[in-house]
Amino acid sequence: MKVLLVFAHPERHSLNGALRDVAIKELEAHGNEVEVSDLYAQGWKAAVDREDFPSLAPSEKLQVAHASGREFASRTLTPDVAAEQEKLLRADVLILQFPFWWFSMPAILKGWVDRVYSFGFAYGVGEQSETRWGDRYGEGTLAGKRAMLLVTTGGWEEHYSPRGINGPIEDLLFPINHGILHYPGYDVLPPFVVHRVDRFDEASFAPVAEGLRERMRTLSSTLPIPYRKQNAGDYHIPTMELRTGLEQAGLSGFALHSNSTGA
Amino acid sequence: MKVLLVFAHPERHSLNGALRDVAIKELEAHGNEVEVSDLYAQGWKAAVDREDFPSLAPSEKLQVAHASGREFASRTLTPDVAAEQEKLLRADVLILQFPFWWFSMPAILKGWVDRVYSFGFAYGVGEQSETRWGDRYGEGTLAGKRAMLLVTTGGWEEHYSPRGINGPIEDLLFPINHGILHYPGYDVLPPFVVHRVDRFDEASFAPVAEGLRERMRTLSSTLPIPYRKQNAGDYHIPTMELRTGLEQAGLSGFALHSNSTGA
Repeated sequence: MKVLLVFAHPERHSLNGALRDVAIKELEAHGNEVEVSDLYAQGWKAAVDREDFPSLAPSEKLQVAHASGREFASRTLTPDVAAEQEKLLRADVLILQFPFWWFSMPAILKGWVDRVYSFGFAYGVGEQSETRWGDRYGEGTLAGKRAMLLVTTGGWEEHYSPRGINGPIEDLLFPINHGILHYPGYDVLPPFVVHRVDRFDEASFAPVAEGLRERMRTLSSTLPIPYRKQNAGDYHIPTMELRTGLEQAGLSGFALHSNSTGA
Repeated sequence: MKVLLVFAHPERHSLNGALRDVAIKELEAHGNEVEVSDLYAQGWKAAVDREDFPSLAPSEKLQVAHASGREFASRTLTPDVAAEQEKLLRADVLILQFPFWWFSMPAILKGWVDRVYSFGFAYGVGEQSETRWGDRYGEGTLAGKRAMLLVTTGGWEEHYSPRGINGPIEDLLFPINHGILHYPGYDVLPPFVVHRVDRFDEASFAPVAEGLRERMRTLSSTLPIPYRKQNAGDYHIPTMELRTGLEQAGLSGFALHSNSTGA
């Protein structure tokens, strides 16, 4: 398989850097091709602005979705963005690796999403009708591919547990897993999360590295998070509200959008 | 009161720009002082990197929390970051205004959080003991102040409803409201959210503007989201898990961390 690893940590000589090496080594040892987008090393531009839209006249107002769709359609996106889109199209699996800063991704990675996810590429795709609301949430440009997060946190695992003060880690990651990865079509694998990384030593590293190697060996067989597909009948169109009675008793919020019964 | 409005939209001549004008005009008409951080106009640097830490030797590894705490303690943060911290300390109310891109804030605003929220300023504050886990979640540098989000989305309100496919808007905003605003101490007001902004015309603008003016007039009286304070006895220390039996029946996930009974 072809794997794209997007790396968003400012220090190569870090736990994140070491985990990246472990992942790549294991993937390559099993015959996969790995491509890396090291956002800091590439000097990735984070903020969406007028410079991203070469066709935009100086007198024209910037409407991001419109401008983005126009450049995408005319193949006039900036070379850095076009190159990342090509990488996404080539890769069978996408891994986003980042430290969890303020309960989300670092700005440089958010800026990769904001800029690479053009209208016509990651959204604004597909026909709208009485039975479809475009191609999104399980359908779209990147459908048939897999994606997963590799995340480190400074906090205690318990603080991210179902009753933990930060909120459950799976809910904190939902805007990314569901809203950024499932949206343009990916099947999303459970994340690989490492906690309390500021306290790491050699003894704590070994089992984590082994767990990561195991995840890299099973990228193609791990069951994805069972997010519901938008156009498979579970949602009312056009309100896109989940039909009543489909969920397990007692579930609400983000959990509604997974179908863990497999039904 | 003193109000700081952090504006994170790349186009001044936009609905966001118009809402910003409405908010400021109303605040000033009622005797408030408004300061604006217009991140695009300021050319705000989004990515945390070595340049943020002048004391870091070229041979030294970058550990962000450590480096950030050191510069904060020695008052050697870069001038752009120090200036934003001063603004936060001066303001009684913080408003973050941004378009909701990929279910979170634009990269430039995330980079404002990542860089301005130094260790020792927004985290790593307060003593840890058997009865306290530092000053966070309702306590800390910014305690006693209020904050709120002013957010625009391109999507339908129904898609963000309790059963909507995107997930409920209040849950999607929890990582920001609770994790970024409540964390360093703010009382967090309910967000002001405007949907379907790509379809706006004069007729749809008027009621939204009036709603926003009302919120600006009531900044000091609006009841905050009743997030639980970390050190008030609701959480086990050090696991910071909510004690059982405190929540309303049927609640789980993020909702556990509000006490809507007022008890």
